[in-house]
Amino acid sequence: MLQNGVNTKNQDDCWMNMAIKLASNGIGLTSPNPCVGAVIVHENQVIGSGFHKKAGLPHAEREAIADGVANGNAPLFADSTLYVTLEPCSTSGKTPPCTDAILKYRFKRVVYGSEDPNPKHRGAAADILEQAGIKVTRGVLEKECDRLIRRFRVNMLEGRPWVIAKSAMSLDGRISRSPERSQWLTNEKSRSFVHTLRAECDAVLTGGNTVRLDNPSLTIRKPDRPVSPLKEQPWRIILTHDASSIPADSICLTDEFRDRTLVVENVFSYLELLKKLYNDKKIGTILLEAGGCLVREFLKAGLVDEWVGFYAPIIIGGGADGVAPGPFLEHEAHLEQPVVNIFGGDVCIRGDICYR
Amino acid sequence: MLQNGVNTKNQDDCWMNMAIKLASNGIGLTSPNPCVGAVIVHENQVIGSGFHKKAGLPHAEREAIADGVANGNAPLFADSTLYVTLEPCSTSGKTPPCTDAILKYRFKRVVYGSEDPNPKHRGAAADILEQAGIKVTRGVLEKECDRLIRRFRVNMLEGRPWVIAKSAMSLDGRISRSPERSQWLTNEKSRSFVHTLRAECDAVLTGGNTVRLDNPSLTIRKPDRPVSPLKEQPWRIILTHDASSIPADSICLTDEFRDRTLVVENVFSYLELLKKLYNDKKIGTILLEAGGCLVREFLKAGLVDEWVGFYAPIIIGGGADGVAPGPFLEHEAHLEQPVVNIFGGDVCIRGDICYR
Repeated sequence: MLQNGVNTKNQDDCWMNMAIKLASNGIGLTSPNPCVGAVIVHENQVIGSGFHKKAGLPHAEREAIADGVANGNAPLFADSTLYVTLEPCSTSGKTPPCTDAILKYRFKRVVYGSEDPNPKHRGAAADILEQAGIKVTRGVLEKECDRLIRRFRVNMLEGRPWVIAKSAMSLDGRISRSPERSQWLTNEKSRSFVHTLRAECDAVLTGGNTVRLDNPSLTIRKPDRPVSPLKEQPWRIILTHDASSIPADSICLTDEFRDRTLVVENVFSYLELLKKLYNDKKIGTILLEAGGCLVREFLKAGLVDEWVGFYAPIIIGGGADGVAPGPFLEHEAHLEQPVVNIFGGDVCIRGDICYR
Repeated sequence: MLQNGVNTKNQDDCWMNMAIKLASNGIGLTSPNPCVGAVIVHENQVIGSGFHKKAGLPHAEREAIADGVANGNAPLFADSTLYVTLEPCSTSGKTPPCTDAILKYRFKRVVYGSEDPNPKHRGAAADILEQAGIKVTRGVLEKECDRLIRRFRVNMLEGRPWVIAKSAMSLDGRISRSPERSQWLTNEKSRSFVHTLRAECDAVLTGGNTVRLDNPSLTIRKPDRPVSPLKEQPWRIILTHDASSIPADSICLTDEFRDRTLVVENVFSYLELLKKLYNDKKIGTILLEAGGCLVREFLKAGLVDEWVGFYAPIIIGGGADGVAPGPFLEHEAHLEQPVVNIFGGDVCIRGDICYR
């Protein structure tokens, strides 16, 4: 599509890319809402931009509009395009519908990437805007925008949090070390990245045994990237057969964030547990930092959505396995387009899981 | 060290690097000899070069000299520098001493990287050459040259082959797959690299169980890099408690290379076995392509010198482990400066092992 000799398709991609980058600043902050970014463009210049920062705060479109207004650009809106990674909302939630704000300023054109994952709302915004004479372009960088909200999509469609399983292993797949050696397998860089990973999540889930043996904090303390001041410490969820078996002086039960620790006894269905955590606590993303037995249970139930495996360059030959031994998983967990990162001598392999 | 305004240290490094590259063409071909490369330089121009191609064929120095002679450069030798990755030999073996050839052409200067690992010969060449008025510089790129002959050094000093353990695993450290699925965990690119790896070795060692279950060929068939026409198929060594348990129609026992298959019964000492293979068959490098039990035994004995682990982006939860379970290894195997390669979606982690 050429307009005045300019390839608007490429321009749309370019501005949508900027909106995606903005949106990703919200990863780990927006639950139960999705990450969304928005950019207002007038004659090839950005005159307003923003992203959704936290549930209860304005949506990305309103952030971008407020930014434009603050910079005195409101008079230009009627001749501008609003780029937003997700179809604008058209219903009232904690905040009024974004379509209202778009109509108010009579934007010339609205471009969005992903459709609303909620089938009840899907396409509603486009109808409202088009009926008001606003030009709407859908599906720009849809794949990339969809990826941004893939966790939210699972929240919406399955009513449960997205689960990231993190495991730090030796090259032979073991997670515990001979007692007379350092407790850590992986190096400081890897461990620092785990803190960043926690900052992507609303909760960390582990087993009572891990708490009894390792007494971990499970907090964000030394992430390898800056974390938003809006980020709260993740919920800490401890699964156990008997709550009284968790030592009363455990860090998770005694530190300043102890109100964010939940001890859950006798889970019969991991799916039901997840649904409850999503419904009751608005937990949209969980980091599973657990021993091999719990990881195995979640894999068996098809409830691990993403895998982050750290491999330390050591072979130890004994101790517990990252995934406890047992029969073959009925559905193997395949990583889709795994991404490899090197942290010093450690290798980190990460990818979304598809069960086959 | 500046000479005529030229930094000869940097020049020495540069020519030695060329000699190292040449030498590495001999990897997998030269056992029981080391890989060696040589370059003859006259007024900053290469006038002869070569590498050791196979035991029984000329050493690198003589290859480089022959190359220079063939190009009519012999008259320049007396004003030239001979760069060689390893201290020239000064004793007669299958071929006459290289020092004789150097003396014959009265090279002006000889530069070498590594010292002879054999303490009986170490430094002997330098003495002979210096007494004849030839300038000798030792230790140029010594670390890199030493690395080139690290396998040979183990041969010399421990009288046994260098052992590379190769394992192809899932992300949870398992090596076998549910019977109703494809036998392979890793992809074609990884498997092709294994053929290249075999071409680096004089023998492939496996267990009877692997032969019974998988009936592998263990030959070099589709390497991902060209293999020298001088390369023979590796020896295939099958360890078993009972030779009669190996099916008579196994590929290793029936194909055109069956004369290169050894079935070894009831090994009591892996070290003694290795020594015998080195002494009797001149096997300098072995690729251990075996199940977890045998890999564990070799690790326990501290006899794995290098690790090549392929990790397929799959979690399978069951089946045999890459390193069979048991007590912690008394000495953990640490990979020194591991190198990571990506083969499609598979990750390959490789490094020399240090036991701690």
